[in-house]
Amino acid sequence: MIVILKQNHDRQKLEEFRRWLEAQSLMIHESVGMHSTILGLVGDTSRVDESLIEALDIVEAVRRVSEPYKMANRKFHPLDTVADIGGAAVGGGHFAVMAGPCSVESHDQLCCVAEAVKAAGANILRGGAFKPRTSPYAFQGMRESGIELLLEARRVTGLPIVTEIMDLQHLDSFADVDLIQVGARNMQNFELLKELGHSRKPVLLKRGLSSTIQEWLMSAEYIMAGGNENVILCERGIRTFETATRNTLDVSAIPVIKELSHLPVIIDPSHATGVARYVKPLALAAAAAGADGLMIEVHNDPAKAMCDGPQSLTPAQFSDMMGSVSAILGAREQAL
Amino acid sequence: MIVILKQNHDRQKLEEFRRWLEAQSLMIHESVGMHSTILGLVGDTSRVDESLIEALDIVEAVRRVSEPYKMANRKFHPLDTVADIGGAAVGGGHFAVMAGPCSVESHDQLCCVAEAVKAAGANILRGGAFKPRTSPYAFQGMRESGIELLLEARRVTGLPIVTEIMDLQHLDSFADVDLIQVGARNMQNFELLKELGHSRKPVLLKRGLSSTIQEWLMSAEYIMAGGNENVILCERGIRTFETATRNTLDVSAIPVIKELSHLPVIIDPSHATGVARYVKPLALAAAAAGADGLMIEVHNDPAKAMCDGPQSLTPAQFSDMMGSVSAILGAREQAL
Amino acid sequence: MIVILKQNHDRQKLEEFRRWLEAQSLMIHESVGMHSTILGLVGDTSRVDESLIEALDIVEAVRRVSEPYKMANRKFHPLDTVADIGGAAVGGGHFAVMAGPCSVESHDQLCCVAEAVKAAGANILRGGAFKPRTSPYAFQGMRESGIELLLEARRVTGLPIVTEIMDLQHLDSFADVDLIQVGARNMQNFELLKELGHSRKPVLLKRGLSSTIQEWLMSAEYIMAGGNENVILCERGIRTFETATRNTLDVSAIPVIKELSHLPVIIDPSHATGVARYVKPLALAAAAAGADGLMIEVHNDPAKAMCDGPQSLTPAQFSDMMGSVSAILGAREQAL
Amino acid sequence: MIVILKQNHDRQKLEEFRRWLEAQSLMIHESVGMHSTILGLVGDTSRVDESLIEALDIVEAVRRVSEPYKMANRKFHPLDTVADIGGAAVGGGHFAVMAGPCSVESHDQLCCVAEAVKAAGANILRGGAFKPRTSPYAFQGMRESGIELLLEARRVTGLPIVTEIMDLQHLDSFADVDLIQVGARNMQNFELLKELGHSRKPVLLKRGLSSTIQEWLMSAEYIMAGGNENVILCERGIRTFETATRNTLDVSAIPVIKELSHLPVIIDPSHATGVARYVKPLALAAAAAGADGLMIEVHNDPAKAMCDGPQSLTPAQFSDMMGSVSAILGAREQAL
Repeated sequence: MIVILKQNHDRQKLEEFRRWLEAQSLMIHESVGMHSTILGLVGDTSRVDESLIEALDIVEAVRRVSEPYKMANRKFHPLDTVADIGGAAVGGGHFAVMAGPCSVESHDQLCCVAEAVKAAGANILRGGAFKPRTSPYAFQGMRESGIELLLEARRVTGLPIVTEIMDLQHLDSFADVDLIQVGARNMQNFELLKELGHSRKPVLLKRGLSSTIQEWLMSAEYIMAGGNENVILCERGIRTFETATRNTLDVSAIPVIKELSHLPVIIDPSHATGVARYVKPLALAAAAAGADGLMIEVHNDPAKAMCDGPQSLTPAQFSDMMGSVSAILGAREQAL
Repeated sequence: MIVILKQNHDRQKLEEFRRWLEAQSLMIHESVGMHSTILGLVGDTSRVDESLIEALDIVEAVRRVSEPYKMANRKFHPLDTVADIGGAAVGGGHFAVMAGPCSVESHDQLCCVAEAVKAAGANILRGGAFKPRTSPYAFQGMRESGIELLLEARRVTGLPIVTEIMDLQHLDSFADVDLIQVGARNMQNFELLKELGHSRKPVLLKRGLSSTIQEWLMSAEYIMAGGNENVILCERGIRTFETATRNTLDVSAIPVIKELSHLPVIIDPSHATGVARYVKPLALAAAAAGADGLMIEVHNDPAKAMCDGPQSLTPAQFSDMMGSVSAILGAREQAL
Repeated sequence: MIVILKQNHDRQKLEEFRRWLEAQSLMIHESVGMHSTILGLVGDTSRVDESLIEALDIVEAVRRVSEPYKMANRKFHPLDTVADIGGAAVGGGHFAVMAGPCSVESHDQLCCVAEAVKAAGANILRGGAFKPRTSPYAFQGMRESGIELLLEARRVTGLPIVTEIMDLQHLDSFADVDLIQVGARNMQNFELLKELGHSRKPVLLKRGLSSTIQEWLMSAEYIMAGGNENVILCERGIRTFETATRNTLDVSAIPVIKELSHLPVIIDPSHATGVARYVKPLALAAAAAGADGLMIEVHNDPAKAMCDGPQSLTPAQFSDMMGSVSAILGAREQAL
Repeated sequence: MIVILKQNHDRQKLEEFRRWLEAQSLMIHESVGMHSTILGLVGDTSRVDESLIEALDIVEAVRRVSEPYKMANRKFHPLDTVADIGGAAVGGGHFAVMAGPCSVESHDQLCCVAEAVKAAGANILRGGAFKPRTSPYAFQGMRESGIELLLEARRVTGLPIVTEIMDLQHLDSFADVDLIQVGARNMQNFELLKELGHSRKPVLLKRGLSSTIQEWLMSAEYIMAGGNENVILCERGIRTFETATRNTLDVSAIPVIKELSHLPVIIDPSHATGVARYVKPLALAAAAAGADGLMIEVHNDPAKAMCDGPQSLTPAQFSDMMGSVSAILGAREQAL
């Protein structure tokens, strides 16, 4: 961390500040120039609150050199994390495909889709039971009974399941779920993150619509700081000025996360675009760029889906996409 | 709502769709052109889910004509809502100033600041007890005991209090709070919004960092649909590419909200800029543009604040700002 | 185009408006509802100026149904355009790789890089002669003499060349250039676009940092409306709130452009990320998603580049990338 | 400027780098920590190209401490610049109002509007002769003959005139114009900026839609580096995700520019919102926040304007707005 002091700062206040820093086991290197004085702080700065320093009278600006996260940081954990989701490995070379309907609607709908995605090669079943909807008048999901149907579909197909939690008070309903999803709108629901940190249940952490990669890793750090290291990151599009797609898929997040962190990162092209016919090209892009997996919405009858129909693939489209994804993954393995 | 059909659509599917629409009491006007057919849907479309229609085979696009919110819509409630916050009126010509420290830190700090902001003309005391922090290693607030201190400060000064809720499970601690704040990161925490809708406690709903004005009003609608009409909106900066300020204050939101909705809208220039010396000019801008109030961070010793010190005003700076705000409000009243 | 009229509009003004529309050969379908009246305009609306209609007293809003561009529109030109760049085909299944240094610096530098990229499989040589730089104090390019060096490198290697034009007054210097690049900052330099439309020289049109896909296609339309149909689009990252990469590559633009337009679209991962080590994964993503080519910065000694060194590949890195790109293209061809 | 070196960097390369820096008259302070080494560079770093340093093998990151602009920097020119626009002062306490039609359409239209805005208190006449339009099929302005009409209107009313230049080749037509406007789309048309720097004609530099404040000041620096210090900045809205207004007015830019630079800054609420009924509240906000002036579109018959009608005020609305602006400016003067 670097602290740039104001010109003509009070020497006594600087002395107080130096003592405060030294009390936190930080070493200080001072560079005195004609127009400015710079302090270089060396040591563990991840627990130093920049805003406290920025507020000091004598300080002009603060620049962080090292990342503010530790548990999620590849510098301290060079090896890839491999998450175990009910028997399915994710990360470290294991490519996972999570597929299923946006919303769980009925036993028949769910099992039909689950069998289809399994046949096409998916290894984790997704399905929404609690649904975050922009409008209070839209379908809000089957809630607890949706989770029952997911558990039943797991018994039938053997696929582990992932589904979204919207509030801490529902946590008990997720006791048998294999992978708990924290949605984009809850990425900074810190009370929820802390509680999930006390569990050992794997967590799929979606990136917030306007969250930087650093904020996203800080939210992973919240979960990991509680002791739960089973975190999978999921990029699902960020909000930009472009309106041709619902969001803008930040495909660069894949190599950036791979460099900064050891956690697996998967891509959700369904929510990123909101348009079924763009899902396949973006799934291929994600596979080629080195993602650890995909999350794809599939519906037996998209035109009758109770939610997000326009972005759902039919089972036939999904199967076609899986063939192409396999080819890309094969080429990637050979070529790298 | 307008539905644009694909060229060469299946006539039988169109008939099914027409019947489905008519079952929802919508009237249909059809315009047949050479390259496209357009359906105009007339009636109460606020409960129609666009995405269901967009997913149909025969549909190319859907355009909404009327707003998807009703309770928050000025068309159906032409008169300004005036909220009563423990005796302080907000909206409909009543300008409110909510001021106080970012975080409650101690009895002495809080009462000192509360007396100072009251003397300068604030009529509601703000203070954070539960604090949403990006880093798990940063100060997380005094939590329940912070609320105790706020209630004590209310007894001493007579100022009603506003403080942020972060999770439903803490709701009981807010029983005596005058105005419950929903923070920007929780603007789409729908379970929280629904529960607050069942209460009659006034709610201050901050705009999400990347939320459109329409999404913000839909979140207000969540609260109001539950029966709670005491909602105050608070613009606190949106996320853009500009880095000179922490966020970008969307001052246009004031006239836009005034047109679309009857709810009061206030401005928080402290969080919008993150820089104390920009707070006063933006507070004046907000007052001039027609905001119903301000939310301002004030700290007796910003350099020692445990949170957000760089954006806090001293009591003296706040008092100076209040003088200028009054002058602007006076000029506005005279001139309009 | 759909026009939503205000409630209680003046019937006489509506009649005037209908006559004005009919004079433009548009047919009008009227849908009268309880709360609003909707006009559906049918015919060639690409030349209708929305803002003229929006300004009318009687109009509440205007929604465009069909695209405002025609020459660039796939609806009217279903077949892929294949551009011929000095013998190299781009589009319609022909994948082009344009590579070379950010700036032309010297004969030796340019020829060294040109030979290297040719050996690795590039088929067009890029190099900046006129350089748009944020700072007036930074290196501004070799200008006319840079173009001389590019022409010399073409003689030596046989590779056609692409280089950026910054101002109309330099047009004569581009007489022998194979492909004229219009940079992101000039995407809406309409006088330049019009003049290039009067030429028959192929144009590489980069997307503006904050331009929507529709605006980008409208800029292509400017060139094509002048008679020049040899336009290649190049996505090079858009500006968002994320700072981990210089810009955010909008990989979704590939399938969106493929659907809306018949023009070739290539990707520039060097400018999109600004970081050499992210170039390869994004190049692979682009190839997998269906791009028609790549533009890549390569420098024999990036650490000594006079411009944009941090994002340049070495010839060895470029050659490695090309091997992987070929593998992905092969897999894509097989699998689709 | 601060340079963070990679761990285990090559000592010999570091020595070379130190010598290169010293050759540029920079002093170097080294801070050696356990995990990183930091170099503080002291001296005139405005001409140092960060990207050259970032590209070095031994460098992990570069952080700029001082601003990269000098001529536009308040640190080196503490006093406000006051521009003289044909007799009208702008900046340093002189509030300017530039008003007139978006496009010059005819002698009668222009003179009618010019007389009206003069009567209401405007002191500079605006009007577009060369018009940048997104569509090649939209009205492109009266061009040279539009400038003739502006000069005529100046003779009639005595108001100095401001109008936009779109290309260097038209520069001769601007010989008698009082203030040359560089539009948002041309903010980084560096060849145009350089040429305007060689003139002594005042320049109104609009902010680009996605330009940071620093980039905007760097574009002012381009003009000033050529010797022309008569630059006025104009904020006209930036591009964000919000669609309720055409752009988002960045009102914070006013205090930020006032702190960083000595140049006058004015606000254009017409283009910022695109909606006539939002112009007045934003004009008042701008005046209250300390802007040096306004640019407002006024049309005698907005419904018949050939361009941007929806955002134009009528003369009566403009006159009403001016009354309120005066009241706000009066209150501001008294209170500050």
